[in-house]
Amino acid sequence: MKKIAVVLSGCGHKDGAEITEAVSALIALSEARASYQVFAPDIEITSTNHLQGAPGEKRNVMIEAARIARGNVKNLADLKAKDFDGVVFPGGYGAALHLCSWGKEGVQCKVLPEAERVIREFHKSSKPIGAICIAPALIARVLGKEGITVTIGNDRETAQEIQKTGAHHEECAVDDFVTDREAKVITTPAYMLEAKPHQVFTGIRKAIAELVEMA
Amino acid sequence: MKKIAVVLSGCGHKDGAEITEAVSALIALSEARASYQVFAPDIEITSTNHLQGAPGEKRNVMIEAARIARGNVKNLADLKAKDFDGVVFPGGYGAALHLCSWGKEGVQCKVLPEAERVIREFHKSSKPIGAICIAPALIARVLGKEGITVTIGNDRETAQEIQKTGAHHEECAVDDFVTDREAKVITTPAYMLEAKPHQVFTGIRKAIAELVEMA
Repeated sequence: MKKIAVVLSGCGHKDGAEITEAVSALIALSEARASYQVFAPDIEITSTNHLQGAPGEKRNVMIEAARIARGNVKNLADLKAKDFDGVVFPGGYGAALHLCSWGKEGVQCKVLPEAERVIREFHKSSKPIGAICIAPALIARVLGKEGITVTIGNDRETAQEIQKTGAHHEECAVDDFVTDREAKVITTPAYMLEAKPHQVFTGIRKAIAELVEMA
Repeated sequence: MKKIAVVLSGCGHKDGAEITEAVSALIALSEARASYQVFAPDIEITSTNHLQGAPGEKRNVMIEAARIARGNVKNLADLKAKDFDGVVFPGGYGAALHLCSWGKEGVQCKVLPEAERVIREFHKSSKPIGAICIAPALIARVLGKEGITVTIGNDRETAQEIQKTGAHHEECAVDDFVTDREAKVITTPAYMLEAKPHQVFTGIRKAIAELVEMA
């Protein structure tokens, strides 16, 4: 049975992992008969009220990610590529605010050291990396100089910013995905496009099936 | 296009709506070409830390449900059966702690007045009611005297408690569902059974397809 790590950045698209994307990834992994373990960084962030959009109290990313993972979440610091056959990064602003600062600084962004280490470890081990929604920007920020190909759908500004990392951007529909076979990077746009839940699920399901096969 | 209301009790199975169940219901509704609107009660609760299980700070159920609904959630007080063709209640302890007190008092439990009103309104209008996981206990508490049939899987204690309401209990596998055609009540056990995410999704997907067809 293939073992896949899933890296969440919280619980809720405005300050964490996009919930439909994260759940779609878990459903697809379980359907593909892979086992999975959820990880998240043990860091404090300012939460966002998802009804009104206002900043709220401090919350811990790992503790909030446990809501999606039904309690079974580990510290991102403990994720080693040698223990898994592949890794998946769902989207949501958490991926662009906590795993890196892309949402505020684009190509100049800083990357959370543990996230960068994990991406480099899986890449060096030639194990597949899946990224959903805005998370491909994080992968491009780390591996762009190697000329990897990713998609975030068809948002021109984000695509141009991604290309500044050295990565290539390919347009993609919500119910589809893009594979860079050489670099083993699999990406799907999900809610980077105007989409319905079952379309997001379809794209992620296909991407995850590809990732598990490649793992 | 059929219009379905989805009633969430928060965000996270220990103090709110079970996230995989809620997302599965939304994916299945969108796949079945139904439109949906999420509702939740505007009430304060004590949150539960999903990593350690300890009680946490006060949170608002409607604001937390907005995480699953991507911001688009309305007050349960504004849900009228005349505006919809059916209603779905995902599970999680929120359904048994905030929508009613079944989790603490069983058949003697109190029901949140707005939740009881909504269930009675849909039932009176002969519009289908879907309930997932432990939520069928809530439906039984309100409509049990009419002898409705529901499932919560195969947990004997919960099934016996449900039968004290006057409702019938039918055993059911996680990837299946039970329909009471006369009362138009559709139930599926989901995480009331030891299950994997894709099995929960499969049962909910089938139940929702039936509900939308019946609506």
